[in-house]
Amino acid sequence: MNRNLDILIREMRIITQLRSVAAVLSWDQETYMPPGSARARANQISLILSMSHARFIGPDFRHSLSTLVDLPTGKVFEDDLAPEEVRLLEMTWRDWRRATALPVEFVGELARLTAEAQHIWEQARRKNDFGLLAPYLEKIISMKRDEADYLGYDEVPYDALIDGYEPGMTTEKLQVLFDTLRPALVDLVTRIQATDVAARPDVLARDYDEAAQQEFGMDILRDMGYDLTRGRRDHSAHPFTTNFHPSDVRITTRLRRDDLTLSLFGTLHEGGHALYEQALNEDYFGTPLCESISLGIHESQSRLWENYVGRSRPFWKYYYPRLQQRFSGQLNGVSLQDFYAAVNAVAPSTVRTEADEVTYNLHIMLRFELEQAMINDSVAASDLPARWNKGMEEFLGVRPQNDAEGVLQDIHWSMGAIGYFPTYTLGNLYGLQFYEAAKDQIAHLEEKIAMGDLGSLREWLRENIHQVGRAKTADELVRELTGGPLSAEPFIHYLEQKYGELYGAISGIN
Amino acid sequence: MNRNLDILIREMRIITQLRSVAAVLSWDQETYMPPGSARARANQISLILSMSHARFIGPDFRHSLSTLVDLPTGKVFEDDLAPEEVRLLEMTWRDWRRATALPVEFVGELARLTAEAQHIWEQARRKNDFGLLAPYLEKIISMKRDEADYLGYDEVPYDALIDGYEPGMTTEKLQVLFDTLRPALVDLVTRIQATDVAARPDVLARDYDEAAQQEFGMDILRDMGYDLTRGRRDHSAHPFTTNFHPSDVRITTRLRRDDLTLSLFGTLHEGGHALYEQALNEDYFGTPLCESISLGIHESQSRLWENYVGRSRPFWKYYYPRLQQRFSGQLNGVSLQDFYAAVNAVAPSTVRTEADEVTYNLHIMLRFELEQAMINDSVAASDLPARWNKGMEEFLGVRPQNDAEGVLQDIHWSMGAIGYFPTYTLGNLYGLQFYEAAKDQIAHLEEKIAMGDLGSLREWLRENIHQVGRAKTADELVRELTGGPLSAEPFIHYLEQKYGELYGAISGIN
Repeated sequence: MNRNLDILIREMRIITQLRSVAAVLSWDQETYMPPGSARARANQISLILSMSHARFIGPDFRHSLSTLVDLPTGKVFEDDLAPEEVRLLEMTWRDWRRATALPVEFVGELARLTAEAQHIWEQARRKNDFGLLAPYLEKIISMKRDEADYLGYDEVPYDALIDGYEPGMTTEKLQVLFDTLRPALVDLVTRIQATDVAARPDVLARDYDEAAQQEFGMDILRDMGYDLTRGRRDHSAHPFTTNFHPSDVRITTRLRRDDLTLSLFGTLHEGGHALYEQALNEDYFGTPLCESISLGIHESQSRLWENYVGRSRPFWKYYYPRLQQRFSGQLNGVSLQDFYAAVNAVAPSTVRTEADEVTYNLHIMLRFELEQAMINDSVAASDLPARWNKGMEEFLGVRPQNDAEGVLQDIHWSMGAIGYFPTYTLGNLYGLQFYEAAKDQIAHLEEKIAMGDLGSLREWLRENIHQVGRAKTADELVRELTGGPLSAEPFIHYLEQKYGELYGAISGIN
Repeated sequence: MNRNLDILIREMRIITQLRSVAAVLSWDQETYMPPGSARARANQISLILSMSHARFIGPDFRHSLSTLVDLPTGKVFEDDLAPEEVRLLEMTWRDWRRATALPVEFVGELARLTAEAQHIWEQARRKNDFGLLAPYLEKIISMKRDEADYLGYDEVPYDALIDGYEPGMTTEKLQVLFDTLRPALVDLVTRIQATDVAARPDVLARDYDEAAQQEFGMDILRDMGYDLTRGRRDHSAHPFTTNFHPSDVRITTRLRRDDLTLSLFGTLHEGGHALYEQALNEDYFGTPLCESISLGIHESQSRLWENYVGRSRPFWKYYYPRLQQRFSGQLNGVSLQDFYAAVNAVAPSTVRTEADEVTYNLHIMLRFELEQAMINDSVAASDLPARWNKGMEEFLGVRPQNDAEGVLQDIHWSMGAIGYFPTYTLGNLYGLQFYEAAKDQIAHLEEKIAMGDLGSLREWLRENIHQVGRAKTADELVRELTGGPLSAEPFIHYLEQKYGELYGAISGIN
C-alpha cells in the first residue's frame, strides 16, 4: 500500500476506535449502567468524543490527508492508488471537510446546548409544556442555520444539513419524490378508510409471556443470520443498534406484555440494521469502506426486514404456526389471515413511531416541511406547535390532543438532528427498490421465505449492499441494483397491490 | 484553590477518566461482550490505556507537576496549600516517579509480553504443561528484575516491586510478620488435624437454585449498604470488583449450583471491596484523595466482610434462618452449628483460592519465598515447579498432583504481577486489626450484627477508612485506628480463639 495512505489509515483507525469506545459507553448507559452515575458517564463520553474530534480536525490529520488529496478541492492524487483507495480518500475528504468547516467553539457550544436541550425535552414532553423547550429550540435552529452557512450549499441552507445524513441528497430531490408520494398516499388512505374492512389490531390483544417473546425474537434473529458470537441483544427503553467493530454489533429491543408486535417488528428492524454492520469488511475498519453509505441506506435494511419481509404473507406462512406454538395456544383463535391483517392495519394516528406503512411517510413529510421552514424561512420555534397541528390535519386528517403527542413527540430536534427525518422515508423507498431487485435476482425468493429460508436474501444483501461499504454512493448503488434511480413509484405500486388485496375491493384498485 | 494545583487536577481527572473508560471496556469484556470481538476489544483497551499513560508521563504533566513539587526529590512547595493538598501532591509525585522511571519502550514490551503470556498460561494450565509457559515466565522475571532496577530500592530488588502494590512495604517487614505467623499457623493446623473433630463441608452438598442464590446474595449486599443506584452485580468466570467513579462501582460473582458458599462468600468479599470504592470522596475524583490506600488495605475490607463478619457466629445467627427459608427447607436438617462448622472447616489443600482462614496465608508465604528467589536470587523459571512442590510439602504438608493445580494455578506471574501476593496476607492482618478496633469502638457490635444490623460497622468503616482516600498511609491508618503498627499477633489470637472453640479441646488451646 501507498505509504502515505497507510499512515493516514492508521490515524483513521485510532479516531474510529475512539468513536467505538464512546459507543460502548453509550450502550452501557442505555442498558446496564446504574442510574446514579449519569453525570460521570456523560463526562466520559464527552471526553472520548472530543479526543476523537480533535484528532480528526487537528494539524497531523490535515497534513497526512494533504499528502494524498488536494485539500481545497478534494481532488485525490491518484498516482499509484487503486480505485477503491481513491473512493476511500474521496469519502474521507468529504467527512473531513464537513468536520473542519465548523469552528471548534461552535461544535462545543452546540454539543452543550443539545445535551441540555435533550433533558429539557424530556421534561417538556412529560409536562406537556412546549414553552419549556421553545427557547432551546430557538437557539438550536439559529445555530443549525449557522452550521449550514459554515458548511455551504448550492440552493438552500437546509441542503447542507440533509447532506450530513444523506450524502448527495437535496431538498429539491426530496421534494420531487414527495410530490409524487404524498397525493398517492393521501388517496390510498382515503380509499382504505372508505372501505368497510375494519383494521383489527385488537384481535392480538392479550398478555404475552416475556421470555417467550424473547425466545421467538431470538429464533428470528438466528434465522436472519445475525451472528451471536459477534453480537448480542439486550433491552432498553428505546430500541437501537450499535456497532463497535464488525465483530461486535449489538441490538436492543423493547418488550411489552400486552403488545407482541413491539418486540416482533422491533427485532426485525434492528436485526436488519445489525446484519449490515456485521457484514461490513473489517479489513477496512476505520475507513469509509467499512462504513454504511448513509442513514437512508441503513434504514433501507431495517425496513426491508421489518416491513417487506416481516409484514409479508410468505414470512408469516412459515412463522405464524411457530408463533402460535411458542405462545402455546394463546393465538389459536386467530387465523393467519386475521394475524396478517392485524399487523398490517392502516389507521392515521398522531404518533410517527406507531404509524403503519401507508401513513408513516406522511409524518415524515410534515417534518420535512417544518424543517425547511425553520432553516430556510426563519420560522420561530414558538410557531411550531400551531404549524404542527395544522399540518397533521392536512397530511393525516388527525389532530394531536396535546403537544406531548404532537410537536414534542420526537427527540430529534432537541438533539440538533434537523435534516434527519427524511432519511426514514428514503429508507422505505430504497428498501422497497432493493427488495424488488432481490426478488428479480433470487429465484423463487418469496417461496423460499415461505419455507423459512431467510439466508438467500441475507446473502444477496451482504454481497450487493453490505460489503460495499462507501465504495459506492447511494445513487450508484440503487442504479446498479435496480437499473434506475431512487423513485417513489415502486413503493406506491407495492402499497396499492398489498393494501388493495388486504382491504378487498378498494375503489380504484383493480 | 491554588491555580497551579487546579490545572494539575484537571489533567489528573482526564487521565483517571481514561483509566475508568478502559475499566468499562474490561468490565464489558468479562460480562457481556460477544466472544468474537476479543481482538477488537483488546485493541480498544490498549489504545485508551496508552493514551492515559502517555498523558501521565508526558511533558505537559511534568511541567504542571513541577510548578508544585520539586521533581527530583518529591518535596512539595507548600506555600499556600492545605495539608490534604500537600498529601495529594506527595502521592501524585510518588505515582508519577514510578511511572516515569520506566522507559516507554520497556512498558510497551512488558505489556505485549504479559498479554501473550496470559494466553499461554491458560493453555499451559489446561494442558498441564509448565514447559509452555516457562520461556515466557523466564522473560517476565528478567524484565521485572530490570523494572526493579529502573525503580530503585534500598535493600533488595523485590522491594521495588512490592512497593508498587503496597506503598511503604518491604521484604524485611514482611519477613518479620511471616516469621511470627508461619510457625503459629503450622502449629495450629497440626493441632486441628490431630483432633477427631471432622471438618464437614460436605453437609452442605446439595443442589441450590441459582435464582435463590442470587436473591440471597442481593439481600446481603443491600444490608451491607451497597448502593445499587451507584453499582450493580453481574456474573463472570472470575469474580471481581471494578470502579469507574464512586458513582459506578460494580461487582461480579460466580455461581455454582452444587456449592452455595462460592456465591455467598464471593458476594461478601466483593461487597467489601465495593463499599470502599463507593464511599471514596468524589469531590476529589481523579486525585489520590479519591483512591484506595493500597491493595492490602483494599483486601482488608473484603476479608473483613468475608471472614470476620461473614464466617462469624453472630452473622449466621441472624442470616442462617433466612438462608434456610430462602432455600425452602433444603437446609432444615443442618443445624446452625453444623453450618458454622462447615463454612469454617480447616483442611490443608493445594489450591490457594479454596483455602480456609488458617491455611490461606501459608499459600502466600510460599509464593513470597519463590518471588524473592525469582527477583533477588535469579532462580530460573524452569526450577519453579520443583520448588513449588517442595514448598507445598514444607508449608502445608500436601503435594499437588500436577502443575495445573500447583505452580500453574494462579494467573498473577504471567500478568507480571510479582510482589502482589503478599497483599492478600496483609489484607487478612489489616482486616482483623480493623475489625478488632471496630469492636472496641462500636458498642455491642457483634450483638448488632446478630440482629442483622450491618450498618453500624459500615458507617465506621466509611468514616474511618473509606473516606480517607490516600490522605493517610497504611501505616498511619492502622496506628491511628488500632493504637499500634501492623502485627500478626491479633490474627493469631483470633484464629486460636475461633478454631480452639470450634475444634473443641485442641491440645494447647485453653
